Amino acid sequence: MQSVGIGLIGTGYMGKCHALAWNAVGPVFGDCPEIRLVHLAEVNAGLAREKAAAFGFSRATGDWRDLLSDPEVDVISVTAPNAFHPEMAIAALKAGKHVWCEKPMAPGFDDAVAMREAAREAGRAAILGYNYIQNPVVRQIGKLLADGAIGEVNHVRVEMDEDFMADPDALFYWKSEASSGYGALDDFAVHPMSLIWTLFGRIARVSADMAKPYPDRPLREGGRRAVETHDIASVLFRLEQGASGVLMVNRAAWGRKGRIALQIFGSNGSILFDQERMNEVQVYRAGVDAVDAGYTTILAGPSHPPYERFLPAPGHGLGFNDLKVIECRQVLAAMAGDGAHVIDFEKGVEIERAVHAMAAAHDGGGWVDIDYD
Amino acid sequence: MQSVGIGLIGTGYMGKCHALAWNAVGPVFGDCPEIRLVHLAEVNAGLAREKAAAFGFSRATGDWRDLLSDPEVDVISVTAPNAFHPEMAIAALKAGKHVWCEKPMAPGFDDAVAMREAAREAGRAAILGYNYIQNPVVRQIGKLLADGAIGEVNHVRVEMDEDFMADPDALFYWKSEASSGYGALDDFAVHPMSLIWTLFGRIARVSADMAKPYPDRPLREGGRRAVETHDIASVLFRLEQGASGVLMVNRAAWGRKGRIALQIFGSNGSILFDQERMNEVQVYRAGVDAVDAGYTTILAGPSHPPYERFLPAPGHGLGFNDLKVIECRQVLAAMAGDGAHVIDFEKGVEIERAVHAMAAAHDGGGWVDIDYD
Amino acid sequence: MQSVGIGLIGTGYMGKCHALAWNAVGPVFGDCPEIRLVHLAEVNAGLAREKAAAFGFSRATGDWRDLLSDPEVDVISVTAPNAFHPEMAIAALKAGKHVWCEKPMAPGFDDAVAMREAAREAGRAAILGYNYIQNPVVRQIGKLLADGAIGEVNHVRVEMDEDFMADPDALFYWKSEASSGYGALDDFAVHPMSLIWTLFGRIARVSADMAKPYPDRPLREGGRRAVETHDIASVLFRLEQGASGVLMVNRAAWGRKGRIALQIFGSNGSILFDQERMNEVQVYRAGVDAVDAGYTTILAGPSHPPYERFLPAPGHGLGFNDLKVIECRQVLAAMAGDGAHVIDFEKGVEIERAVHAMAAAHDGGGWVDIDYD
Amino acid sequence: MQSVGIGLIGTGYMGKCHALAWNAVGPVFGDCPEIRLVHLAEVNAGLAREKAAAFGFSRATGDWRDLLSDPEVDVISVTAPNAFHPEMAIAALKAGKHVWCEKPMAPGFDDAVAMREAAREAGRAAILGYNYIQNPVVRQIGKLLADGAIGEVNHVRVEMDEDFMADPDALFYWKSEASSGYGALDDFAVHPMSLIWTLFGRIARVSADMAKPYPDRPLREGGRRAVETHDIASVLFRLEQGASGVLMVNRAAWGRKGRIALQIFGSNGSILFDQERMNEVQVYRAGVDAVDAGYTTILAGPSHPPYERFLPAPGHGLGFNDLKVIECRQVLAAMAGDGAHVIDFEKGVEIERAVHAMAAAHDGGGWVDIDYD
Repeated sequence: MQSVGIGLIGTGYMGKCHALAWNAVGPVFGDCPEIRLVHLAEVNAGLAREKAAAFGFSRATGDWRDLLSDPEVDVISVTAPNAFHPEMAIAALKAGKHVWCEKPMAPGFDDAVAMREAAREAGRAAILGYNYIQNPVVRQIGKLLADGAIGEVNHVRVEMDEDFMADPDALFYWKSEASSGYGALDDFAVHPMSLIWTLFGRIARVSADMAKPYPDRPLREGGRRAVETHDIASVLFRLEQGASGVLMVNRAAWGRKGRIALQIFGSNGSILFDQERMNEVQVYRAGVDAVDAGYTTILAGPSHPPYERFLPAPGHGLGFNDLKVIECRQVLAAMAGDGAHVIDFEKGVEIERAVHAMAAAHDGGGWVDIDYD
Repeated sequence: MQSVGIGLIGTGYMGKCHALAWNAVGPVFGDCPEIRLVHLAEVNAGLAREKAAAFGFSRATGDWRDLLSDPEVDVISVTAPNAFHPEMAIAALKAGKHVWCEKPMAPGFDDAVAMREAAREAGRAAILGYNYIQNPVVRQIGKLLADGAIGEVNHVRVEMDEDFMADPDALFYWKSEASSGYGALDDFAVHPMSLIWTLFGRIARVSADMAKPYPDRPLREGGRRAVETHDIASVLFRLEQGASGVLMVNRAAWGRKGRIALQIFGSNGSILFDQERMNEVQVYRAGVDAVDAGYTTILAGPSHPPYERFLPAPGHGLGFNDLKVIECRQVLAAMAGDGAHVIDFEKGVEIERAVHAMAAAHDGGGWVDIDYD
Repeated sequence: MQSVGIGLIGTGYMGKCHALAWNAVGPVFGDCPEIRLVHLAEVNAGLAREKAAAFGFSRATGDWRDLLSDPEVDVISVTAPNAFHPEMAIAALKAGKHVWCEKPMAPGFDDAVAMREAAREAGRAAILGYNYIQNPVVRQIGKLLADGAIGEVNHVRVEMDEDFMADPDALFYWKSEASSGYGALDDFAVHPMSLIWTLFGRIARVSADMAKPYPDRPLREGGRRAVETHDIASVLFRLEQGASGVLMVNRAAWGRKGRIALQIFGSNGSILFDQERMNEVQVYRAGVDAVDAGYTTILAGPSHPPYERFLPAPGHGLGFNDLKVIECRQVLAAMAGDGAHVIDFEKGVEIERAVHAMAAAHDGGGWVDIDYD
Repeated sequence: MQSVGIGLIGTGYMGKCHALAWNAVGPVFGDCPEIRLVHLAEVNAGLAREKAAAFGFSRATGDWRDLLSDPEVDVISVTAPNAFHPEMAIAALKAGKHVWCEKPMAPGFDDAVAMREAAREAGRAAILGYNYIQNPVVRQIGKLLADGAIGEVNHVRVEMDEDFMADPDALFYWKSEASSGYGALDDFAVHPMSLIWTLFGRIARVSADMAKPYPDRPLREGGRRAVETHDIASVLFRLEQGASGVLMVNRAAWGRKGRIALQIFGSNGSILFDQERMNEVQVYRAGVDAVDAGYTTILAGPSHPPYERFLPAPGHGLGFNDLKVIECRQVLAAMAGDGAHVIDFEKGVEIERAVHAMAAAHDGGGWVDIDYD
């Protein structure tokens, strides 16, 4: 791969984030093929042209299918709304393009499976945008676990909380409609699940409780409408490796802005992390004399790859957007056939399967074993 | 009540803690009846005499029943091991004494009920030693909730973690025997439950998962023995008031020393607390402009009663033993027939009932409604 | 010493704190002589009687000199206002009593010297109430330094901040009058200096800047009066052992309630402490691989003596009043001729000398060498 | 300005940081002129070509003077070592280019003045790379101060600490040579000074103490050499606006990685900040009831401009490199004649003047008034 041609569908939050990553990945890493920003698609040609100029893309189109037939495009960033992911990703794969698709994977489980099948058939890189796993600090946690630094993991607690649904007086909108999914589980819990999958492997069984903090919400036109989704979900689980765990997500948690908190307990220590302080990890090692024992707060630095590609000095801090640059480098690695540290469509389907199992457990009121076959 | 005569059974950790409280409560509060340290019981007369001297008690005995017949004893602190609570508390109540009994209430549920019945019949104060609810910061949380400072509570997470069972190489001892109970649930979870009961009221239904971090432990005499109790328990619950919640306890959590963490989410804000930083509470209030919004960390001070009885300046810090002094003042209030902020035998039985329901839910694999009648 | 008779002068904040300590020291430590609460003095007999009852003292008087002639009194707690310390302490020492005197030592330097001379002549224990040095966590810092855990100390920063003078609209009162002293320096800086003396030894030279946040304050009777004291002081210093340091005190620091912050840098690590989180200390050890290096937050526990006398479990927390109990035990040790961990009148005079040198440095605008002879 | 042509001298740490910023500023802000990456200079043509490819520049050269004569270059990023700043910046300004020059400004004060004179004559934007002032959180602090949120500032403490010189066994190198300057003061203290200048205005007078943690260091060739610079500096100061303050810098502070801590006390509140947690600011507002009062920890979010250009959700975190992108946008604003939030050569000379005054105060042992004329 001497050069890679980029196509981008969508220029919202994540579209911009992809564009920034494609601009930065070469200068940051210094070991990439040449990145050519080839073709950008938006819902209409005007917006597409404006954004292509802003993001440095050569060509613009109001029809995303134009990217499929563009021979200079090697990989397509799919950042359009969730509902379009299956159609776009499958079409791109069939056209021989690599795909870098935002999460959640797809509204329906069948769609997710179809995407995975398309990836298998195409033999192309098919990567999901689970960027939190790219944090050098999270990678360091993975390394500590692999090295046995805290022994065998026997208990895990994972929380994700934000407050964008916390205001009870906010108007009813699509996130409260059943058509959008279960609520916090699929909108939200897939992020911490990407961490679980990366750090501990698959969840074997679940018991779940979903809750609605507010039964209804005001309508713009007056009156109120019953909320159909669950902003809160709490899940007991067992990992395939045997440890017990709890997954808690709440998108109506006043005060939480970007919390993804991990508590990992092992036979020889424990590890704490919170995405709101994404440049820190706390490690407790058993075996130290009680007089000296405590959590050590480690600040991200050049010894936590690939922090050193961004900054030569420790403690200076990466940001959320930097995680997308690291992910972008992994997409390039996957395209080149190198082992990549990503959630691909294979793992993505597993996460989707777990989401649906959790919802089923809530409905059934008991434990559900997840069948990955 | 011009003066109160104290009897004390037991001089271990909690016995000493009671003794310190009985010594301090008068000077600290300045509004108590005279406290007379009358009679102390231990397993033998020699130890009793030694401890009576150290703690300032007038009389000592190797037979705790001597306290029952001592007319100068008005209230008896029961701090002997758990298994003796029912016999001692019931006998004391029948002898017309008030009782201040350490938790957990009793090994078996029937015993707990019998204790409650004895209290009802005796018409005496019968108080359990749930001291964490006495923290001025916890009382302030209660006041904030009652004042509606964070609106209606809709989600709660409660964690209690220590690491005294975390070492996999520690020898098998009685806490791993089934005869000691379920494990973390009854040994441990009753503490955070006392907070739940105090702040939010009763739990209506539960789903639970108990786990063993280590399947067996070494025996002193060689070989290994299977662990029969669960050091970890995770519980999904619904409060009677409707909110969803998660209770998590782990007595094998390396690095945690005295963590009791609360996360309370309401329609208008949220509150955080951790007993390891017991002089702090964090409050987030919705309605503040986003530019200024965040958690406010409030340090305990004289405006958080009864902190002002201990210290006139804020931020100087109370300690764990001070909580017992506050509880002691509440015992005196209960004896005087004043409304007391305590977990009495009535509420204590409710907590025990919830513990057993959680264990049943674990066994059954589904939700269990708790019947308080 | 089979038993010790206690006299107490004063029952305000610190008087109560002493009374609590004398009540608790026996039960807490279990290795003390019998403590007899003999005689309590207040400004009038009525108040004295009331407080004697509350604090458990046998006799009460409106004339503190009665304690001098009471043969059952062995040691006198002097907690009357600062201005009375010299007269009371000297008289008590001349009467053959041991003295436990609150800080600051005396308003004038000559008075402090006279107190020290009286102590030398009497050959009695003469101890000042610098309780922060008794914190098990601070003792642990001392042990770490003595063990060379962070190598040779080469830089120190010490801050003490509260906000009781922060309100510019608060009425003028005696703390703003020149007759009360320099302001923050003598009212306040003596506390962090007690830590410096305990942990690092004497200060050799100083350069200082004192500042007034508010030039004047309102009078109750209307109008305003110029403030004569300095609520803020900042001091550059060199220790006798060679390290450079900065001492900063501010009693008009909005938001600070009981902050006494230490930053100690050595050739092989560093240590952080803040009295507002008095049960924690943070230690950084050089020599750890960068990938694992960070500050370890150690919670006070039984391995940090004498925490274990209060509580058998770590992380449960001591409070401010507990520090006075530890100090009380040290007073008993000093009385028995055992080596005690205290600021006695000898060291107290050194601290006073440094205070006056700092004020002189402020006036002179340059460095002042402190002459301890 | 429809488009801007960029020249870059140097591709080390800061050169890469500039390159990343020039790549990102357009996509991030969406309101910039077209950015053309025109010409990159390094010490030799080969390295220049390699870096031009990595960073996306069209032309490369081994002679930085080629950029001066390149008509397509509008602005030159000067990131070569400190000693080259004067020559390069002055030449660029004389060639009619705008200049974005890394700090510190110049080794000698006369050089800094000459740079400022060149900027005045050229009438071009001449901006220094003080990026910490660009943090949205720091900007928010500035806004709070301007709005009087904490009343009138009366005391300030500023600390900057890292540990890259903390190892006593590290070899002697140029940072310990007198030819490199004073040590921490010019290498390091200019950063916190940029914050002081931005938030509070000019320092009027100073008293200072510089210190050497280690008297000598090992030489690679064996033996030891005396250290000539001071890794630690502590400065008492008064602002022109009247407040007292302390500036502390230490580049041998084990454990500190990127600490720049601000404590700002005013008549109506206080503000805390630490660059190691660069997405947080703590604000204490007087006037709140004591029962509710405390520091509020605000996480950076879209209401703190220009955070919203990077991320639409609060609490997700910017990184150090993002600050350079914001600074880059300010350079463009300055080039366009818009008011820019920067440290330009005018203010830069003031900071240099203060640095030299501090060193003089250290030598003289007393206070030095800074003459800005």
